[in-house]
Amino acid sequence: MTAFSIAETAAMHRALDAAASPDVPAGPNPRVGCVILSRTGDVLAEGHHRGAGTAHAEVDALKNLAASGFSARGTTAVVTLEPCNHQGRTGPCSQALLDAGVAKVVYALDDPTAQARGGAAALAAAGVRVQRGLCAEQAARLMRPWLFAVRTGRPMVTWKLAATLDGRIAAADATSRWITPPAARHDAHRLRRDCDAIVVGTGTVLADDPALTIRDETDEPAPARLQPLRVVVGSRPVPPTARVLADDNHLLLSERDPHAVLNALAAREIRHVLLEGGPTLAAAFLRAGVIDEVVAYIAPALLGAGPAATADFGVSTIADILRLGQVHVEVLDAGGDPAIRVTGDLGGTDRATTTVPSSMTPPTTPQHAEENH
Amino acid sequence: MTAFSIAETAAMHRALDAAASPDVPAGPNPRVGCVILSRTGDVLAEGHHRGAGTAHAEVDALKNLAASGFSARGTTAVVTLEPCNHQGRTGPCSQALLDAGVAKVVYALDDPTAQARGGAAALAAAGVRVQRGLCAEQAARLMRPWLFAVRTGRPMVTWKLAATLDGRIAAADATSRWITPPAARHDAHRLRRDCDAIVVGTGTVLADDPALTIRDETDEPAPARLQPLRVVVGSRPVPPTARVLADDNHLLLSERDPHAVLNALAAREIRHVLLEGGPTLAAAFLRAGVIDEVVAYIAPALLGAGPAATADFGVSTIADILRLGQVHVEVLDAGGDPAIRVTGDLGGTDRATTTVPSSMTPPTTPQHAEENH
Repeated sequence: MTAFSIAETAAMHRALDAAASPDVPAGPNPRVGCVILSRTGDVLAEGHHRGAGTAHAEVDALKNLAASGFSARGTTAVVTLEPCNHQGRTGPCSQALLDAGVAKVVYALDDPTAQARGGAAALAAAGVRVQRGLCAEQAARLMRPWLFAVRTGRPMVTWKLAATLDGRIAAADATSRWITPPAARHDAHRLRRDCDAIVVGTGTVLADDPALTIRDETDEPAPARLQPLRVVVGSRPVPPTARVLADDNHLLLSERDPHAVLNALAAREIRHVLLEGGPTLAAAFLRAGVIDEVVAYIAPALLGAGPAATADFGVSTIADILRLGQVHVEVLDAGGDPAIRVTGDLGGTDRATTTVPSSMTPPTTPQHAEENH
Repeated sequence: MTAFSIAETAAMHRALDAAASPDVPAGPNPRVGCVILSRTGDVLAEGHHRGAGTAHAEVDALKNLAASGFSARGTTAVVTLEPCNHQGRTGPCSQALLDAGVAKVVYALDDPTAQARGGAAALAAAGVRVQRGLCAEQAARLMRPWLFAVRTGRPMVTWKLAATLDGRIAAADATSRWITPPAARHDAHRLRRDCDAIVVGTGTVLADDPALTIRDETDEPAPARLQPLRVVVGSRPVPPTARVLADDNHLLLSERDPHAVLNALAAREIRHVLLEGGPTLAAAFLRAGVIDEVVAYIAPALLGAGPAATADFGVSTIADILRLGQVHVEVLDAGGDPAIRVTGDLGGTDRATTTVPSSMTPPTTPQHAEENH
């Protein structure tokens, strides 16, 4: 039975917060945070990974520690993911921790990748005390798209829809602006921030000419480095004035087959796709079984006519209804103009529940029991 | 500035609870409760109205008081509605309170009807101390359908729908059983209990053969006296084996026009209609502007095909979207099988907000502030 100290648990929460920092773009690498503790459990330094090509969290924390004039000798490094053991765009973190003289490493999740795993074993072999499994569920939640992509070889797909109570995403004349209130639209921009690609069909581009950028509540765009790749799929020509073409951060795919689209995106190291297409594209992805998560913004309103959230995807009888798992409901309300956000998972039990690799089942420690309240 | 004592406020809450007692059928009369307090503020007796033809709440409370061997002399009667002043199926309550020697009457809402109002004035003229406005909002909520019917001359209409996230109420082959989980179905039976008539179209009877009865969680029907009138509208013949015809508590109306249907029901003293029809009937009522409240049970599920919650009711562009007011969202969850209940009002500002008649605006007392938290 592994026991973690209160200081280590608090440090892990801080490392998770650092990993989730909004200045980190979604991208090929997992979100990782690291906190360095003194022998007496005081926080000496903190670091986090800021995207592909930048320092790993451990190296960032060690650098911050050195900048503060502290030595790492005898300290404990608390990390959200097993320190890597390979020479990638940066050096192996296991070696950096050893070189710095860290005495103990506590981490949340094993690294599931063939090229980077083994850091824990290397550290232990060199005499460092290593403990794993602290806050494993939270870490798995944070790194869910990355873990999904590593496991399946394709990006995780989140489908976003905004509809009325009667399931309409636009009126009969195709007007759709602001079915849902501002609170829901701001939330949808936060959702975009978690993804590294937004996918729509050419039909949506031609009908709505969306910008598909992350903007804040004053409609100011986020920095370019945080903007997801804008992906337009389908064969209809996109006019050169379309807003999705505003800068180079876009991709036109004439392919509409969901598997082919996801393969093309996987080849570009995309881990998390936000599908914002219309009913035809949504139905194609649903039929292909490649929608992993649904985020529905429901406006308490009625239209009675107009396109539905999804076209026919092959369900003909009630027994085949597609039910969401792990459902979470939140009322988004700004000034009495509410929308209801319903989030849930699709796919087999596997997809819905095992974001923690089975080898990673967290130990039954008091911390863990507490985290599950 | 009217001030109410803590004992009177507590008694009013108790009177409201008694009025809302589940043994009272919805029906032509308002739900009313009464509590009798001693001079020192102790509860001596409680009573409530049990439906047309039975004793009014005040008379019920006085009878219970007498049965306990107490005298009403010098007591305070706390009532949810102004004591009536007319000889209906029972005698005037104002006179009964006077005869019993009640010294003070506290009530929530004025009686808005021409035939029964005036009880407060009659009591005051006879020397009884009278205060009104305590918990007026709660009382108005409790008596909402009755107040609505008195004000408008027609029953209040609540439309119930059960749909998926994409707005489907059945699959493509018309199978629809249990789109929503048991928790939502039980809640829908509680909803039926609040109504004195359930309206469906002949199409729904032919497709689903619903019983339209109130049943409990073990599928046991509630007593016959609590069952709402089952109303089938439309011109298609209903087979004699249909479950809605199981006993005499039903009405077949060949008329489908919503105004004509509501007039026919108003003539039968129906105050609150639950519309459970399919998309065609719902659209007719929406188009006629006679749906006052919407209760939507949303299943976190997708169908992609099948009938929508409502047919076209005349909205062709987004600016004309029908938005619900006073929206209330609740997650109904039984064993991890959730449904989302969205309740809201339709119609003009008048309908949505003024269930308290303007003459009845409650006084700004500390009680009132507290009730609004």
